[in-house]
Order: sequence, then structure tokens, then C-alpha cells
Amino acid sequence: MNIERPKSKQPIPEHATRVFEGVIFDVYQWQQDMYDGSKKMFEKIKRLDTVIVFPVLDDGRILLTEQEQPGMEPFCGATGGRVERGEDVLAAAARELREESGYEASEFILWDARQPATKIDWAVYTFIAKGLMKVGEPAPDAGEKIREKIVTLDELIELSRQERFAEKEIVMRLMEAKIDPEKRKELEELFALRK
Amino acid sequence: MNIERPKSKQPIPEHATRVFEGVIFDVYQWQQDMYDGSKKMFEKIKRLDTVIVFPVLDDGRILLTEQEQPGMEPFCGATGGRVERGEDVLAAAARELREESGYEASEFILWDARQPATKIDWAVYTFIAKGLMKVGEPAPDAGEKIREKIVTLDELIELSRQERFAEKEIVMRLMEAKIDPEKRKELEELFALRK
Repeated sequence: MNIERPKSKQPIPEHATRVFEGVIFDVYQWQQDMYDGSKKMFEKIKRLDTVIVFPVLDDGRILLTEQEQPGMEPFCGATGGRVERGEDVLAAAARELREESGYEASEFILWDARQPATKIDWAVYTFIAKGLMKVGEPAPDAGEKIREKIVTLDELIELSRQERFAEKEIVMRLMEAKIDPEKRKELEELFALRK
Repeated sequence: MNIERPKSKQPIPEHATRVFEGVIFDVYQWQQDMYDGSKKMFEKIKRLDTVIVFPVLDDGRILLTEQEQPGMEPFCGATGGRVERGEDVLAAAARELREESGYEASEFILWDARQPATKIDWAVYTFIAKGLMKVGEPAPDAGEKIREKIVTLDELIELSRQERFAEKEIVMRLMEAKIDPEKRKELEELFALRK
């Protein structure tokens, strides 16, 4: 699968200077030409990209996670995490699925790819994983506590409307299924297992 | 109006160090205690807060803006912008409304206040402005081109489902009005002018 990185609505120009390099965040600045001919210092963040993976179990239900992380309110979401520097997007999706659920998948479908934030160069890739095989126990890192939460597609759509649902980047697409029957059908097909 | 800043789901601890100070973004780092007793470098951004203002005209319709900014795709949204360092939130809302529309308002209703992003300490305040008085022409800064777009509440809700709608932080609340008749009624009351 050849995955193209979604474009930013406001790309960092090539002549921008990286003024800070951090763990997750780098900061870029540049002199931007304004409409009246003046110049102004513009600033933008580059953030390590994120993968979100919704695993579909053999009974057609979806494996979600209830998670706690240090100093953070508990939340409910899919599996997923960040794409490390230099890591392939699909490899990151497979790694996060394995670490957070103990499953490997024979099929990854790219459901959505977008840059959700203004002034931040940050791509979020959302996958649906099928053909699951349990290969071990979840192996979250020392900064995660994870419990399974298994839901139907309807339950996922309802859950997405709650504040504690973490995958805000995909909420609109789940809510659309409540509004538009065509979108609902597309979603059912996307999550369906092959006969 | 006493406006409380919404809390972050993962607050920057007091002992964190500010390792970079920028124009819009500051970067903080700290050693976080993990669940297994180990420590790990955590990193979080602090971004200048944002105000969004939906002005309601005397005929009950809503004044939106079609905007262009240098190096950015055109978008459609409310009026609004960032809260400058040390600026009062409500003052920022009134200033952005004035600059982008030429209106002053006798009433600001705080509709929503949230921290929408993970790992970024950033509050977004959404207001509805009523009792509008035109006091001049829009005075966008040299980095903005702005045209008026006047819509009904129904048109606003439909528009919120489009990709080019900029106010992503409030989309869920607009879409909820399509799904839940109670929420729809609340929204009508919120945007209604007093008799």
C-alpha cells in the first residue's frame, strides 16, 4: 500500500528555519510576504504524525481501548499512537496495534488521512484492521494503562459523540453516518468482514 | 462576564521547563513519572488561545466570512482570531469582531469553551454576538482578505459539514443539531434575537 501524506492547508515553506527541535514538536519560523508588501514573522509547528487503528474482531465487533496515561484524564479510543521519526506509516499502525491489543492483522484499510489542525504540520492516518490474529498480550509502554472495550458499529457511532472519545479527527465521519443513510452504508461496508 | 479558562486534559505540570518561547507557540518539557517507576521526557506545546465569534444580524441571519491568508487555502468560518499575550478573552472577541466585520456588539454569549487538542495547552472560546452596530469597514490586517457570507442557521449547520469550514472545534455541536431535536432547539434559542 502506497500511502500519500495528506497536504497541509498552510504548508511550511522551504525557506523556513527550524528554530527548535524537540521530542515530538519542532518549531519553524519564516518571514511571510503579506498582501500589502510588508513582511511578518510566521510560525508553525511540526508534530510527529499519528496513526489510529480500529481493529475488527472475527464476530464483526470493533475492539476499542479504555486508556489511562500519566497526568491525563482517562479516555476511550481506538488503538494507535505516534509515527516515530523515520518510521513507515503502515509499520507504525501494525506496531501500535500489536503493542496496545496483542493482535496482528492481515489487512489494513486506510479509511481517512488528514491534517486536522491549523498552524501545525501534522498528519493523522486512520486505519481499519481486519484478519486479526492474537499473537500475545498487550505490551503497552510504561506510560499507558489499557483495557479492552468491544463495541458494535452502532455503539462506536454513539460513543464518538461523547466528550471522552479520543479520536476527534474521525468524529465527523462517524457522526455523518447518523445524518446521511448513504454514509452509514459506506461505513457498514468499510467495517464489514469478507464472507 | 467572568470567563473561566477550560482545563487541559493533560495539564503542563508546574515544574515543567519552558525550553522554547516563540511568537504563537511555547514548548515545555518535564520528566514524567511513569507507571513502572521509570521517568520519561514529556513535551507539550502552549499555544495562544483562540476566540471564535458568530455575529447574529438584525434579521436573525448569521454573518460568516470567506477568508484568504498568505500561503493558505481559502476557507469559510466565523470572525475570530488569537488572544494576544495578556489580552482579556472578551476584549479579544470584541476586537476580532470589529477588525474582521466592522461591527460592535452589545451582547456576547459564551457558547463553548474547550481545549480541543492533545499535547497542546490551547483554549478555544466560541461566542455568539448580538445587538450589532456597524461602526466602520472591516479592517483586516495585512495578512487577511475577507468577504462577508450571510447564512441562516440551517445553512450554517450544512456548511459545518464541509471540509472548508474552518471552525472545526464547534462542528460537533452544529452536527448534533442535525441528529438530536433537543440540541437543535437549544441552538435555535441560542442564536435567537430577543423580541
